[in-house]
Amino acid sequence: MIIPGFRFSGIAAGIKKHGGLDLALMAADSPVAAAGIFTTNRVKAAPVLLSRERLRRGRAQAILVNAGNANACTGSQGLDAARDTTRQVAELLKISEGLVLPASTGVIGQPLPADRIHQALPDLVARLRPDGFHEVAQAILTTDTHPKTATAEADLGGRKVTLAGMAKGAGMIHPNLATLLAFVFTDAAVSAPVLKALLRATAAVSFNRITVDGDTSTNDTVLLLASGWAGNSPITEMGPAAAALGRPLAQVLSDLARQLVADAEGATRMFRVVVQGAASAREALKAAQTVATSPLVKTAMAGADVNWGRIMAALGRSGARFNPDRVEIAFGPHLVVQNGEGRGEAAEAAARETILAGPFAIKIDLHHGDFADYCDTCDLTEEYIRINASYRS
Amino acid sequence: MIIPGFRFSGIAAGIKKHGGLDLALMAADSPVAAAGIFTTNRVKAAPVLLSRERLRRGRAQAILVNAGNANACTGSQGLDAARDTTRQVAELLKISEGLVLPASTGVIGQPLPADRIHQALPDLVARLRPDGFHEVAQAILTTDTHPKTATAEADLGGRKVTLAGMAKGAGMIHPNLATLLAFVFTDAAVSAPVLKALLRATAAVSFNRITVDGDTSTNDTVLLLASGWAGNSPITEMGPAAAALGRPLAQVLSDLARQLVADAEGATRMFRVVVQGAASAREALKAAQTVATSPLVKTAMAGADVNWGRIMAALGRSGARFNPDRVEIAFGPHLVVQNGEGRGEAAEAAARETILAGPFAIKIDLHHGDFADYCDTCDLTEEYIRINASYRS
Repeated sequence: MIIPGFRFSGIAAGIKKHGGLDLALMAADSPVAAAGIFTTNRVKAAPVLLSRERLRRGRAQAILVNAGNANACTGSQGLDAARDTTRQVAELLKISEGLVLPASTGVIGQPLPADRIHQALPDLVARLRPDGFHEVAQAILTTDTHPKTATAEADLGGRKVTLAGMAKGAGMIHPNLATLLAFVFTDAAVSAPVLKALLRATAAVSFNRITVDGDTSTNDTVLLLASGWAGNSPITEMGPAAAALGRPLAQVLSDLARQLVADAEGATRMFRVVVQGAASAREALKAAQTVATSPLVKTAMAGADVNWGRIMAALGRSGARFNPDRVEIAFGPHLVVQNGEGRGEAAEAAARETILAGPFAIKIDLHHGDFADYCDTCDLTEEYIRINASYRS
Repeated sequence: MIIPGFRFSGIAAGIKKHGGLDLALMAADSPVAAAGIFTTNRVKAAPVLLSRERLRRGRAQAILVNAGNANACTGSQGLDAARDTTRQVAELLKISEGLVLPASTGVIGQPLPADRIHQALPDLVARLRPDGFHEVAQAILTTDTHPKTATAEADLGGRKVTLAGMAKGAGMIHPNLATLLAFVFTDAAVSAPVLKALLRATAAVSFNRITVDGDTSTNDTVLLLASGWAGNSPITEMGPAAAALGRPLAQVLSDLARQLVADAEGATRMFRVVVQGAASAREALKAAQTVATSPLVKTAMAGADVNWGRIMAALGRSGARFNPDRVEIAFGPHLVVQNGEGRGEAAEAAARETILAGPFAIKIDLHHGDFADYCDTCDLTEEYIRINASYRS
């Protein structure tokens, strides 16, 4: 994967307890348009605070990422460490330090091993190369079982434009955002304000529609950089050209979001909860999210148990208005609840086949209005507990 | 356990799939003052709808409970089944059917096996006896590992008054209320309005301060009956005499609530999350509940891992206002976070001993106001998943 104008590099710096690639650098050949979105958690990691501040001007040239340590809840020392390491990157690249964006993922509350990063940075910078994309996708992982990448192309006025993204995340996945790091690159020529508007709009239908465990991380970061090397007529306002870029961008983010859910900690099944017939947009989303985060629904799915009573119970506490006697619930094409009552064992047996067959949708109609929304999620298994009860020890 | 004025009976009626006591009757010798509180879930089981309606007059004489089937999401048929079975109880006891309160717990969405109940009822009524309390405490269980009972006494103007309660619940435990059935009896003479006020006030500091998995059941029911046999001067208004009854009532409910958390599905550790220094009462409670329901915090506790970063992350998404740099977190007497930063490995090692030693408190000071609240909960283990992934199958 080559994205004209960008180079990549990953290295093992000794930050992860059990070794492996854990430090990555992504650099543009010159300052480029950049946009970012960050965690909504009130507790924000040092690199989030710094990247958010540096992105105000809409320009960046490098991203420095480490895995294995979140550099969160580390106070002024943590902020100093983020500043010092990105300053060294800037010196090595001979650019302004305000153009270097830091991101971190890993354990919260432990000091960032800045010494190890300082030692590794000269080598990391020296190894930057156009085809290092997959190496970086590997280096940003924590409990993920494999790297996640997605690409798309667009035609902007006869110019072929490339988009490529990578993401990491396994637990703590919940809207707005998730323990999610995602970095997306394009060679399109596009202004920073348009880039930001496109990123917000496409994240809303991708990363903000997935949930794993309802927890929201302190480090969530999505960055989008555009080098302009494609030579298209620069996109400086929302309109047909911006839409032509937004569609493949949405495709890349949705692809990454689906991969995140599929590789969630301990997940064995992936499913989408669709709610229609809600009285408001807010209620449609809340109902979908409440079902998608219910531990009882998620464990039932782990057991391929068509336990629709738990779905009814989750809907009932979601805050969405509806008449229980009118609710419909289907698993894929199989309607198991009609007018609030079960349709019997044959319908449930068919629904169970749908669960066993692979990714599926639970479709709920509240019959109480015209609004619909959805949420992608996965089952909750014993493996999730195993991973999270022993993550640090 | 004898509560003057009440008789009890439990029987195996074949409602539970794997056998055992599953049908219970509790009866007063004459109509008595009664109060109840019920699930806040929008989806309410048939017995909840019926009991709530019948309690409007503040009088009852019998409670009919079955385990193994929730009679929820069963439509008009379910309501008919609840009416028919309680009517038969009324006929056998020769009382008005409006004095019989039904309650059910078990699987949602399957027709109540009313035939089996009808067959068992004559025997159940014939077996009513003053010392049947513990038999009933056994008959109302589902996945609980043992019965839960609590007793207390009060002195009301020189008259000894007895209170005795029983409860069941293992999963789906969450404030307002929980998959919780609780039945409390007293021989005090007290009016229905005072009984209701006392029940609401004491549930607020007991059942509504516990959480297991954030799910709220369709069947939660707490009933309180007072026979008046103690011969105290009847309590007809809130005042010193009502308070003298309220204290032991709070003690019984708190005792039952603690037992529910300790016996939660798969739980190995019980802990209390205390939040102080919040900017409002609402934020104090929300912060405590968010930490207490976080799967990542709960799995960390299962591994005795002092992973305070997950607590910070949960606080950060709770909606409570605070400055992360001022937060303090302690495990029992051991302060592990001060000014938002970890106090090091020695403090965490001491905190780990606190976790391993038994029930413990996580004490959080937001240093942002004067409000405090708490929530009791338990760890999240692989066993919870095993139980819930296979509950029906």
